[in-house]
Amino acid sequence: VTSFPVVGVVGGGQLARMMQPAAIGLGVRLRVLALEPDDSAAQVIPDVEIGDHRDVSALRQFAGRCDVVTFDHEHVPTEHLSVLHNEGVVLRPGPEALRHAQDKIVMRRRLTELGIPCPRWRVVHEVDEVADFARGLRSDEVVLKRPRGGYDGRGVWRVRPGDSLPAPGPLLAEEPVDFTRELAVLIARSPHGQAAAYPVVSSIQSDGICREVIAPAPSLLPDHAVSAQEIGLRIAGELGVVGILAVEMFDTAGGVLVNELAMRPHNSGHWTIEGAQTSQFEQHLRAVLDLPLGDTRAVAPYAVMVNVLGGTEKDVYGGYLHCMARDPALHIHAYGKEVRPGRKIGHVTALGSDLETTLSRARHAAAYLRGDDI
Amino acid sequence: VTSFPVVGVVGGGQLARMMQPAAIGLGVRLRVLALEPDDSAAQVIPDVEIGDHRDVSALRQFAGRCDVVTFDHEHVPTEHLSVLHNEGVVLRPGPEALRHAQDKIVMRRRLTELGIPCPRWRVVHEVDEVADFARGLRSDEVVLKRPRGGYDGRGVWRVRPGDSLPAPGPLLAEEPVDFTRELAVLIARSPHGQAAAYPVVSSIQSDGICREVIAPAPSLLPDHAVSAQEIGLRIAGELGVVGILAVEMFDTAGGVLVNELAMRPHNSGHWTIEGAQTSQFEQHLRAVLDLPLGDTRAVAPYAVMVNVLGGTEKDVYGGYLHCMARDPALHIHAYGKEVRPGRKIGHVTALGSDLETTLSRARHAAAYLRGDDI
Repeated sequence: VTSFPVVGVVGGGQLARMMQPAAIGLGVRLRVLALEPDDSAAQVIPDVEIGDHRDVSALRQFAGRCDVVTFDHEHVPTEHLSVLHNEGVVLRPGPEALRHAQDKIVMRRRLTELGIPCPRWRVVHEVDEVADFARGLRSDEVVLKRPRGGYDGRGVWRVRPGDSLPAPGPLLAEEPVDFTRELAVLIARSPHGQAAAYPVVSSIQSDGICREVIAPAPSLLPDHAVSAQEIGLRIAGELGVVGILAVEMFDTAGGVLVNELAMRPHNSGHWTIEGAQTSQFEQHLRAVLDLPLGDTRAVAPYAVMVNVLGGTEKDVYGGYLHCMARDPALHIHAYGKEVRPGRKIGHVTALGSDLETTLSRARHAAAYLRGDDI
Repeated sequence: VTSFPVVGVVGGGQLARMMQPAAIGLGVRLRVLALEPDDSAAQVIPDVEIGDHRDVSALRQFAGRCDVVTFDHEHVPTEHLSVLHNEGVVLRPGPEALRHAQDKIVMRRRLTELGIPCPRWRVVHEVDEVADFARGLRSDEVVLKRPRGGYDGRGVWRVRPGDSLPAPGPLLAEEPVDFTRELAVLIARSPHGQAAAYPVVSSIQSDGICREVIAPAPSLLPDHAVSAQEIGLRIAGELGVVGILAVEMFDTAGGVLVNELAMRPHNSGHWTIEGAQTSQFEQHLRAVLDLPLGDTRAVAPYAVMVNVLGGTEKDVYGGYLHCMARDPALHIHAYGKEVRPGRKIGHVTALGSDLETTLSRARHAAAYLRGDDI
């Protein structure tokens, strides 16, 4: 028993929570650093330490009792990561890789150096620079992003030339991309250098929040699919990522462009829990433990994952009766979170061979659990 | 969050442990009554109470903080179950059903009354009764079973007429069945009366311990398969089982005969974790919570589960490198138990479309993890 490692996870959200079933299967022990005892992951993992990921001594104490440390989110200050790394803590992914997922300007600069296709971008500090950039694009709108700390659409704005800056600079200004849809590719990579790509998925976002994911992305041009996987594998290798890397992309007539990076299990990969031979959560653990990676192939022609966002229905469990009776093969996931409007509190996954049926099964259940008038 | 129920599980073994991934998915909270803080399930479930399942006050205190109580094993004394039941504790399965899984004589009597095919049997208290029974069978051997408390081959003997009794009576004497193979069928049933059968599997036992399970049972005669499922559903209904019922059977030229019953998730159903639309562990939780049952269909043509028994290799985790590198689609499960000879410490599952390949993948991995000379 003693030879089984302890994996520390910084952050007690639903991603850490969903690592626990995979860890239970493998016999690996998780230890979580959570802000509150009732955080999503802290409800289901016995070995919890309460502490703040912005406090380097809390991190140090936590890491001291883990064989390897990984993350539920990107919010640990980069300088703390460097301190711990220099003290010999095994961080996976390491600070050199992780800062590309923490800072969008660092990410854009590096991907551009690597020649990886991105939207046109520049760093702006003031209103005039936004106007200059828009003029160069021949666009009457520009996307502005706070380099650090944004998620689920927070810290992203669309502005017109002349609008005042929504936040102090530096901000990342990007061209508004005329995309046909949004894609995501998940890559797993181990310290050893083994890497594997999951099938490319399409994701439907609304207000910057992922609403649904279809795996594989329907009628995606084969060369766009290959190019998305190649870009993902190249980024993982060049940046030295360890664990899961999620690359969100725009699909355009001219090819795919990289939108965002995340270095942890990702919402676009929740379908893999039931839909792939190896789930992204087991894969992440295998990667950070430098075990050989699992099989990334899908187990069904289509998997559809729809997020359950907090809505009008407070009693989500009460909705199980209807959803399970209507669709015995549906997979419902609840994160143990209180219902608040728009908050991700769970998801549902349906597998099937007919896309329209599979989509409507998953959409119906998610809408019902939210309490939508359907 | 508060509307999500708490399911109490009496017993901290690997069956309780494997309920936790299903509970995490559904957002249901488990609470476990374990003998020791490092029991298999207690390692992975935060809400643990240490107490003895043979102590009625420990059971009462435990049950007081659960919405429904279920079981990892059959060893809670029947009289304690009745006391708790009469005090209003929601036990699923209830004592009236459960005593048929606790006492083999009670079980044989009831199944015989129901006209369900069983091996010929009688209750014996002394040597002469064994000899009489053997004479009636025209057999020079008889199987003797201790009615209560046996498992994994313990409490079962083969004796010849004239041999002294291996344990004080009453014992259950049964004819030695000339079977072609052993089968098992899993049934789920809810308090509501909804029931569902999983595909019939074949199990290979050795020294009374389950070694491997093939789902579905290869080249099983269709009418034997139907009859096995019908028998399982009939037993579940007649006995008022709630949760998973496992019925172990002998397949013979003349049809199937019932061997043993268990009323909890069962070793013969571990393949369902990856191999069925709904795992037996989620199904058990759905049943005891009176939720609609999940889909029992297989997701692949064949699933093979092989138990990892404690062998010469103490470092089971060390074997992951070889097994995962050789077979990325293999599913390895470790129960957090110390290696002891012959002890069930984990299992592996392989899914595939070719039976021989799938069998050899799972057998190889289990043998390697045990440390067999292969």
